[in-house]
Amino acid sequence: MSRDRLLREARDLDRGDPLASFRQRFFDDATDTIYLDGNSLGRMPADVGEVMSEVLAHQWGSRLIRSWNERWLALPDTLAAQLARLLGSHSDEILVGDSTSINLFKLAFATLKLQQGRGRIVTDCLNFPSDRYILQGLIDQHFPNHRLVTVGTSDGITIDAHAIRRALDTDTALVSLSHVAYKSAFLYDMKEITDMAHQVGALVIWDVSHSAGSVPIDLNHCQADMAVGCTYKYLNGGPGAPAFLYVRRDLQDALDTPIPGWFGHAKPFAFATDYEPDRGLRRFAVGTPHILSLVPLECSLDLLLQAGLDRLREKSVTQTEFLLALFRSHLEPLGFELGSPTNPQHRGAHFSLRHPHGYQINQAMIRPKGTDVPIIIPDFRPPDMIRMGLAPLTTSFEDIYRAAVRLRDIVEREEYLHFSATPSGVT
Amino acid sequence: MSRDRLLREARDLDRGDPLASFRQRFFDDATDTIYLDGNSLGRMPADVGEVMSEVLAHQWGSRLIRSWNERWLALPDTLAAQLARLLGSHSDEILVGDSTSINLFKLAFATLKLQQGRGRIVTDCLNFPSDRYILQGLIDQHFPNHRLVTVGTSDGITIDAHAIRRALDTDTALVSLSHVAYKSAFLYDMKEITDMAHQVGALVIWDVSHSAGSVPIDLNHCQADMAVGCTYKYLNGGPGAPAFLYVRRDLQDALDTPIPGWFGHAKPFAFATDYEPDRGLRRFAVGTPHILSLVPLECSLDLLLQAGLDRLREKSVTQTEFLLALFRSHLEPLGFELGSPTNPQHRGAHFSLRHPHGYQINQAMIRPKGTDVPIIIPDFRPPDMIRMGLAPLTTSFEDIYRAAVRLRDIVEREEYLHFSATPSGVT
Repeated sequence: MSRDRLLREARDLDRGDPLASFRQRFFDDATDTIYLDGNSLGRMPADVGEVMSEVLAHQWGSRLIRSWNERWLALPDTLAAQLARLLGSHSDEILVGDSTSINLFKLAFATLKLQQGRGRIVTDCLNFPSDRYILQGLIDQHFPNHRLVTVGTSDGITIDAHAIRRALDTDTALVSLSHVAYKSAFLYDMKEITDMAHQVGALVIWDVSHSAGSVPIDLNHCQADMAVGCTYKYLNGGPGAPAFLYVRRDLQDALDTPIPGWFGHAKPFAFATDYEPDRGLRRFAVGTPHILSLVPLECSLDLLLQAGLDRLREKSVTQTEFLLALFRSHLEPLGFELGSPTNPQHRGAHFSLRHPHGYQINQAMIRPKGTDVPIIIPDFRPPDMIRMGLAPLTTSFEDIYRAAVRLRDIVEREEYLHFSATPSGVT
Repeated sequence: MSRDRLLREARDLDRGDPLASFRQRFFDDATDTIYLDGNSLGRMPADVGEVMSEVLAHQWGSRLIRSWNERWLALPDTLAAQLARLLGSHSDEILVGDSTSINLFKLAFATLKLQQGRGRIVTDCLNFPSDRYILQGLIDQHFPNHRLVTVGTSDGITIDAHAIRRALDTDTALVSLSHVAYKSAFLYDMKEITDMAHQVGALVIWDVSHSAGSVPIDLNHCQADMAVGCTYKYLNGGPGAPAFLYVRRDLQDALDTPIPGWFGHAKPFAFATDYEPDRGLRRFAVGTPHILSLVPLECSLDLLLQAGLDRLREKSVTQTEFLLALFRSHLEPLGFELGSPTNPQHRGAHFSLRHPHGYQINQAMIRPKGTDVPIIIPDFRPPDMIRMGLAPLTTSFEDIYRAAVRLRDIVEREEYLHFSATPSGVT
């Protein structure tokens, strides 16, 4: 395909995009910035400013403590109901709060207690390092006789389902996997893996941080046991927005939280001396909800539900396929390599490209020298990976075209040489 | 003292109050509301609205992911430095994040691991129920051979230091106490109790949720080992603002967190496969900081530091003494009883009054029938306690006078009979 043809195709796809208008529902700072952070911080819904002003002036400023009864106690439940629609579960199977790591700690600890007599935890080498830290910490500090088994990858990009099957045995207590891998975007078949685990009596905790809001998820259909996820990526909840957890109904009362908190008490406002767990999933709540960090999420989940995950996924697959075509025509000849699966069925909404000068190229994208060049913000994951998050709600096909052209130009013109090769901070 | 004389005294005290002007630095909704919630949600600093707008539009909306490097990664450290000045510690001894319960879990777990061979945890019957839930959970789920010893009270209001001494022995691993008791406002001598604990080799975790921002605290001077606290009470951090923890420098590297998170990793952005704890206190960080819920705290801590804790405490003692005088003249004759210590040296900034119809009286304060009557917001703690938080930065002496007169009127006129006797929600 010629280069011009791909630009025309991008514009055609944007014209035919039924979700194109959603871009205006997000804050626009009127700069020429293409935001492909993949996707550690989603864009801000346009109405967050107004909603937050009301929360501050009216709810906190004026109604003060009364807002707990009037508004705030119900907010996590409202968000859980929205998330349930997005994730294919019942509202009472979702609990919003804390961080992904704390939620994984709570659920994994409870699972290992429940699955006494089984000593094996299975994960894979593509999982979030932070999920591994929690699993390793559970063994080091709480279950010293357990062991962590890590399923490897043959290509650095995907995991073979047969390799998972081989790692499972009747000693396996827990399988902990990222639904979409944070670097390569490899997407598991949630139902297939869950079924495999159930066949040996193991329970699965899915980390859906990179798939929630970008890939259709049907937790109930998959008979998923448990899940955790963050809300600041494709769910656009804002910087460090609290996380969530999911436990299927018939498993909830069998699990005990390792951190019994007052919001998980059956009667938190009775201030009883002894702990009595609330029914169902609420027992996993701990402290007072971080209200201001939860407020934007109601706006952003509303937008995602309006768009619909099936339409979002359709656009997302077309977008990653389009980027793959651009890779073939513009980037492969310049030394870029694929860091993501070529089969869209096994690929989430981000796309990773590897290059020996990846860190420097990424810096050149973010900090262009000329004023006629767009600022493009992918992110970088060591050692050599440029990760592009194609959030379908806010990314256009022309954005993707321009990003690929810019990658080409940076390498062809050796612009990356202006930048240090040493990473620092969040990139 | 005559009633009129106390009103004159209130007005004189307000005129002579060097901190009176700080009231204007907080949001004012121009209603006749006297806010004595004690103090589950402090008032909002007036500049929070503007600061939050900038965070949303500029930092999230426009700078997007770049704000992590430009602003947000440093925010918890900025807050820690402010808190350190308020609490008498070094900045690197304070870590901001998560909830009080999660922080207590982390520190208590680490302490029990460190103090292996000791099986006794000492607390008292005035401690937060939620702190007890965490301690009890540690025994039930993690340290089944440990036991929790609860020091009793002879008057329901105070704890005798000798009773604490008697509970301590060389088997004591941990002492966990609220610095100021949530109901009675009983204030411990932090140094005295810490010294006692150290004599038997025990470590102390102070919960300063009700004393931070209302009582001068000098953690380093007291040689305090550890502390936890929330920020939404007298620190005015906003609804469910994240909590903090303190560990003295020479203890930090001896403690291992039970929840190893990526923000506690020595190199979080290297995405290393294995966990390596950061030096010092940072290892207790877990997930991504909840930025929007942290933003107001910088404003409010700034106001507290400008006012100065010594001046705040001086005003606070005068205020609780004034309320005690009002109790004697207006309320004791009507069946109210004291729920707080009479000795100001052992009393925090709130003041509790007991009455058999306490819940209904509290409702009548919050929801007056007439329009010429102020809305007064104390809070209620079962079974019969009206808790009045006299936040010295935002409460005037005339507020206190009017609240006492209103309590008298409600009982004298039996207005409380209009309200149900059954508590619900946050009160």
